[in-house]
Amino acid sequence: MALTLSDVAAAAERLRDIAHRTPVHTSRTLDALAGCQIFLKCENFQRVGAFKFRGAYNAISQLSPEQKAAGVVTHSSGNHAQGVALAAQLLGVPATIVMPDDAPAVKREATAGYGARIVSAPAAQREKVSAQLARDEGLTLVHPYDDDRIIAGQGTAAWELFEQVEGLELLFVPVGGGGLISGSALAAAARQPGCRVVGVEPAIADDANRSWRSGTVQVLDQPPPTIADGLRTRFIGERNLAVMRQYVYDMTTVSEEEIVAALRFVWQRLKIIIEPSRAVALAPLLSGRYPAPGRRVGVILSGGNVDPFNLPEEITGANA
Amino acid sequence: MALTLSDVAAAAERLRDIAHRTPVHTSRTLDALAGCQIFLKCENFQRVGAFKFRGAYNAISQLSPEQKAAGVVTHSSGNHAQGVALAAQLLGVPATIVMPDDAPAVKREATAGYGARIVSAPAAQREKVSAQLARDEGLTLVHPYDDDRIIAGQGTAAWELFEQVEGLELLFVPVGGGGLISGSALAAAARQPGCRVVGVEPAIADDANRSWRSGTVQVLDQPPPTIADGLRTRFIGERNLAVMRQYVYDMTTVSEEEIVAALRFVWQRLKIIIEPSRAVALAPLLSGRYPAPGRRVGVILSGGNVDPFNLPEEITGANA
Repeated sequence: MALTLSDVAAAAERLRDIAHRTPVHTSRTLDALAGCQIFLKCENFQRVGAFKFRGAYNAISQLSPEQKAAGVVTHSSGNHAQGVALAAQLLGVPATIVMPDDAPAVKREATAGYGARIVSAPAAQREKVSAQLARDEGLTLVHPYDDDRIIAGQGTAAWELFEQVEGLELLFVPVGGGGLISGSALAAAARQPGCRVVGVEPAIADDANRSWRSGTVQVLDQPPPTIADGLRTRFIGERNLAVMRQYVYDMTTVSEEEIVAALRFVWQRLKIIIEPSRAVALAPLLSGRYPAPGRRVGVILSGGNVDPFNLPEEITGANA
Repeated sequence: MALTLSDVAAAAERLRDIAHRTPVHTSRTLDALAGCQIFLKCENFQRVGAFKFRGAYNAISQLSPEQKAAGVVTHSSGNHAQGVALAAQLLGVPATIVMPDDAPAVKREATAGYGARIVSAPAAQREKVSAQLARDEGLTLVHPYDDDRIIAGQGTAAWELFEQVEGLELLFVPVGGGGLISGSALAAAARQPGCRVVGVEPAIADDANRSWRSGTVQVLDQPPPTIADGLRTRFIGERNLAVMRQYVYDMTTVSEEEIVAALRFVWQRLKIIIEPSRAVALAPLLSGRYPAPGRRVGVILSGGNVDPFNLPEEITGANA
């Protein structure tokens, strides 16, 4: 594989003073409940509200002058869209984001607010439309996860966490397309080889678990209806799988109820706003499904892009 | 006055490794909107979710062995109750908390969870009941704000902020009973004398503004119906006023709309959960009511004890 252990270190250098060095939070209550010592890497406080800025900046900053002048394109309705838009703006690169035509106005505005051109397309056509734009206009496609520079960039969150906290024995990471988990696993291998990296998925979106176990990419027929809407990816990337097979220690899943319980705990007790998708990595520890008695455990809280005043009933209703 | 500039330093020493050293957050978006450089001292991440733990621990830890053995009493339905309960538990001191009989079950449970005895009383009788208990049972009353050790303890949040951020020129602090503002003003005078401390109140609860200007404690007839429910105190303490008159640079007020706008900004953009009361200190900067162009400004976000899934309509409805 093209990625090497030094790629995350290089990305961390590239992002210095550009990305936020996000804080690490701890909670005695959480530790008591989970029976281990938990260190939460708060990427919800990252620029654009999620780790996605890291990969986007690492990728776009390495384009050739010609590629930069021509511009980049991606398809996303979520954090990757905003990450690419902001990174491109900072680097003076024109950005085009293909968004599904039913994307919430607030997400379109946030992305446009970073100076990106928004192109609407039916959700099912997004990939085709962005490929077409790349061809027609000579744009470089910035894939959300199946890209070495994206993987190395996302890995810098874990890299920083290893700098901030010594002696981590386990690291829990949420898995969608596989960018964050493969970057985090690389970071661990390079910097804290004794730390075991565990990927966590919603049980009803377990394609990455099955891919990792079988060794071939498993594809879901439909975007899974999990509350963790940032993890509704139908399949992980080939590059991601290769890194995961080599460096990820274990994969596990959590139920929708466990995700909601973890989300509510983080909001109510830790006073931190995270997206449902980002509660996923904490859920196995909090529910007791994946105990780590007495261990020093890192958890990546990877994003906070949710409207706290417009939550789905599954979240607000569970204990109202 | 009995309080001296060294009292906050002594309190900070007492609280070392006991209270959390809470993080300071910054936001480029916030700075751009407010036109100054803002440093948010996140006391919502403090133990029990608010700065109140600082004063309570500082006060109770200084009681005599006899007083400690007999126990403490206070009246509060909010953060002070939990602060006293936890501090007493850590110090092995029996605590009795007089709560209004209509206090939400969740607050009673949280306080009882720290091992305190809860005594119910009609809201209007709370002070009498706690005074009676103090007399009958030989308990020491831990006043929520009109107490030198409470004031010095609350001042340690600002003290820490001055350690964490150099060259602050202004510090905005919310004002309820006056414990936090008088402690913060003392901390500034002792540690960063060039820093001007500004107290902020809801306009419909402006008794502290009027007290500070007139030099005598002004009393509201009724608890004011502000959304900032932690600041519904009817009057500040004499001790607090004395410190404020000497060390507070200015006092200002904000409208209910400005409080809600600031609260929504902190939740939506900063991804931090704070109580409505704690948005008050940020509101004058965000609304432009009290501009501080180009300045380095500290703001104390003093507590996060609110149920994020059960918010009043004034908050959720404004932009839903």
